[in-house]
Amino acid sequence: MSVTHIEHIGIAVKSLNDAIPYYENLLGVKCYSIEEVKDQKVKTAFFKVGQTKIELLETTDPEGTIGKFIEKKGEGIHHIAFAVKGINEELQRMQENGIVLIDKTPRSGAEGLEIAFLHPKSTFGVLTEFCEDRNQK
Amino acid sequence: MSVTHIEHIGIAVKSLNDAIPYYENLLGVKCYSIEEVKDQKVKTAFFKVGQTKIELLETTDPEGTIGKFIEKKGEGIHHIAFAVKGINEELQRMQENGIVLIDKTPRSGAEGLEIAFLHPKSTFGVLTEFCEDRNQK
Repeated sequence: MSVTHIEHIGIAVKSLNDAIPYYENLLGVKCYSIEEVKDQKVKTAFFKVGQTKIELLETTDPEGTIGKFIEKKGEGIHHIAFAVKGINEELQRMQENGIVLIDKTPRSGAEGLEIAFLHPKSTFGVLTEFCEDRNQK
Repeated sequence: MSVTHIEHIGIAVKSLNDAIPYYENLLGVKCYSIEEVKDQKVKTAFFKVGQTKIELLETTDPEGTIGKFIEKKGEGIHHIAFAVKGINEELQRMQENGIVLIDKTPRSGAEGLEIAFLHPKSTFGVLTEFCEDRNQK
C-alpha cells in the first residue's frame, strides 16, 4: 500500500483574510504558514488537524485555476491530496489502470512537496493530488 | 481544542458499484462497509486511509440531497467531517460565533456516530459536519 494518509484538503476561498479567522476558530489552532505558489497563481494558508492539513487557496490572478473555479462553482472544497510513497511509480500504476493524469511527472508544490494531479474526469469528479515529501523517504 | 482530526470526507457518486473498484485500487485497501442511511436517502461505502475515512455516497432517491447535488454540480466532494469531543458544546460555540447550523442538536449518522451539519453559507462554501463517537467518550 503506497497511499499512507490524506496529506491535505484544498479549499478555494475568495479571501484568506476572511477565511483564516473562521478556520482558526473552527479547528482551535493557528494558521501556521502562508505561502505564495507562483506557478499555480495562488496564495495558500495552512492549518494542521490530526494527520491532515487544511490548505486554503486564494487566487492571485482571476484567470488562474482557483479564480476560474470560484467563478464557476463558488467557494468550496477544490481537491483532495493523498500522501504517497513512490510518487513516480504510483502515477505509472494509475495510468496503467486507465486514469488520466494532469501531471505525468511530479512538480514542486507548496511546502517543498513533489506533487501531481489526476484528472477529475477519470476519478469520479474528484480532483485528486498525490504528494510526496522527498525528505521523508 | 475539541476538533481532533478529519473523521471522513464525503464524496457523491452516481454508482457505488462503479466507484468502489477505483477507490480500492487508489487506496490499496478494500471497502470495509456498505450501509444504507435511510433518513438521509443514501447508500454509503467506507474506506480507511490513515486517520480518515472516505465515505462514498450514492442516492437512493433522485429527490434526496445527494441526488440533487449530483444533478446540480456533478459527482465530486460533498462534505468534510471533523471528529469532535463534546459535540453539543461545539455546536453551541459555533452558533455563538455566528455560524448557521443545519442541525441544532446532533442526530444519528452512519457507523453509529452522532452527527450535525454546519451550513455552507457561513462556512465559506464548505458543507461541514461534526461527528462524535459516543463510545469513545
